[in-house]
Amino acid sequence: MPRLAYVNGRYLPHGAATVHIEDRGYQFADGVYEVVPVFNTILVDEDMHLDRLDRSLSELRIPQPLSRPALKLICRELIRRNGLTNGILYMQVTRGVAPRDHKFPKKSKPALVLTTKQMKPHSEALLRQGLKVVTLPDQRWARCDIKSVSLLPNVLGKQAATEAGAYEAWQVDREGMVTEGTSTNAWIVTDGNRVVTRDATNAILNGITRLTLLDLIRAEGYALEERSFSVDEAKAAREAFITSSTSFVLPVTQIDGQPVGNGHPGILTGKLRQHYVDYMQSLRQSA
Amino acid sequence: MPRLAYVNGRYLPHGAATVHIEDRGYQFADGVYEVVPVFNTILVDEDMHLDRLDRSLSELRIPQPLSRPALKLICRELIRRNGLTNGILYMQVTRGVAPRDHKFPKKSKPALVLTTKQMKPHSEALLRQGLKVVTLPDQRWARCDIKSVSLLPNVLGKQAATEAGAYEAWQVDREGMVTEGTSTNAWIVTDGNRVVTRDATNAILNGITRLTLLDLIRAEGYALEERSFSVDEAKAAREAFITSSTSFVLPVTQIDGQPVGNGHPGILTGKLRQHYVDYMQSLRQSA
Repeated sequence: MPRLAYVNGRYLPHGAATVHIEDRGYQFADGVYEVVPVFNTILVDEDMHLDRLDRSLSELRIPQPLSRPALKLICRELIRRNGLTNGILYMQVTRGVAPRDHKFPKKSKPALVLTTKQMKPHSEALLRQGLKVVTLPDQRWARCDIKSVSLLPNVLGKQAATEAGAYEAWQVDREGMVTEGTSTNAWIVTDGNRVVTRDATNAILNGITRLTLLDLIRAEGYALEERSFSVDEAKAAREAFITSSTSFVLPVTQIDGQPVGNGHPGILTGKLRQHYVDYMQSLRQSA
Repeated sequence: MPRLAYVNGRYLPHGAATVHIEDRGYQFADGVYEVVPVFNTILVDEDMHLDRLDRSLSELRIPQPLSRPALKLICRELIRRNGLTNGILYMQVTRGVAPRDHKFPKKSKPALVLTTKQMKPHSEALLRQGLKVVTLPDQRWARCDIKSVSLLPNVLGKQAATEAGAYEAWQVDREGMVTEGTSTNAWIVTDGNRVVTRDATNAILNGITRLTLLDLIRAEGYALEERSFSVDEAKAAREAFITSSTSFVLPVTQIDGQPVGNGHPGILTGKLRQHYVDYMQSLRQSA
């Protein structure tokens, strides 16, 4: 069974899935995306992702390409056709094809692309050792709250992390405070066992895993602070971790070459990861 | 004769010219571009554009897709096949196609897309009346010196200008100083008849028309200052204008609804436009 992609109304073999060279996503980064975890064939927090997609589209005034029920149907069909059990569904919506001109075209039909990708579980070694992160200046634009495909600074940041032997780069604003990773949200646990993550402003992308974990933290009664934290506070923290649709919750054990806490994945971090995995396992497919 | 585009080695009818959905230009804005004016079939300042393309690619560590002689040959061939006399050549280079992952792929071949567009001369009315600009906060990333396709903030700025009945938006940094337009460089002429444009740092795209006009200004002996100017200074200026590959030199007669100078296109602005047009007319095709 060849892997399929959905492109503007058609299911196409992945290798033959193309868009026009004047799709505004290609020429202007004029589009948005979502990455939805698929766990045991179920789309995790699907409506939250689609709500955020709607918000991103609305902020850019790109019309919705399809009604939500139609979009959900296509998501399920693509997962079914691709035989996906665990992995991600990627969806991208752009302002569509129009002769190149910066301003919004008078007429254009939003373009919709969906792909799926099978993913392996996180390795035991990764969970036992934790991840390294480095810090670097946040070079991004002022509207990081919009999940746009304007990701070049994130690409450069992730590459810098990779070359430094790290998994992720935590981006740091002009005030020396961590905003977030290039594709993940950043968290620490203080000496007082308080969980801290940056409040959701225009400076970060409000992750769906972040939001769900915040709910789980509140439900479990852990102490929580949504606020900025500095690089120094992070390096002196008891624990650190990241969240994202593909990371779930992953421990950070080194920041800029310095061990976090005792250098091993944090105990609370491990509990939070388990809460999140339990949450995913509790899900049943919605309509 | 159908309009053709060049895409990764092939000349294709424009309507059928496509790129893969996992071209990193589409998913990450991981690419750069150039817009080269074509005047009487001649590529204006071609080598300067190709030098800047090389610089943009180098800053992003994207390999050059072709040698310069090969690229020049294709540019000429596309212009010839499309029967282009006056207009633009658009070229875009991305990091190529690879499974979606922020960091640079280990293997990928840069993608190259070229298109041409016929353009009409600027209307007499436009040159007589001049343009309106509005000002708005510069929301872009820290590396505006790289001519990347990460243009979403520019799109939003140009749209805001359009909706305000203006041709362009001048973006303003945190210090209240004008950086540049969303697709043009910004210039003023002071009461002392000094030409002022922002110095080329990471905060602006160093326009090729800007560079050529700077040379012409120096050659003609006009007083020149490369420095930042504030919105207030611009509004109080004697003249204002913009430059770009498609604008050449165009007068600005209104900023945020206030007339510039006497509200008519400036005299020096008109002279500079004429110098630039004379310069283009003096060009002969290079090898």
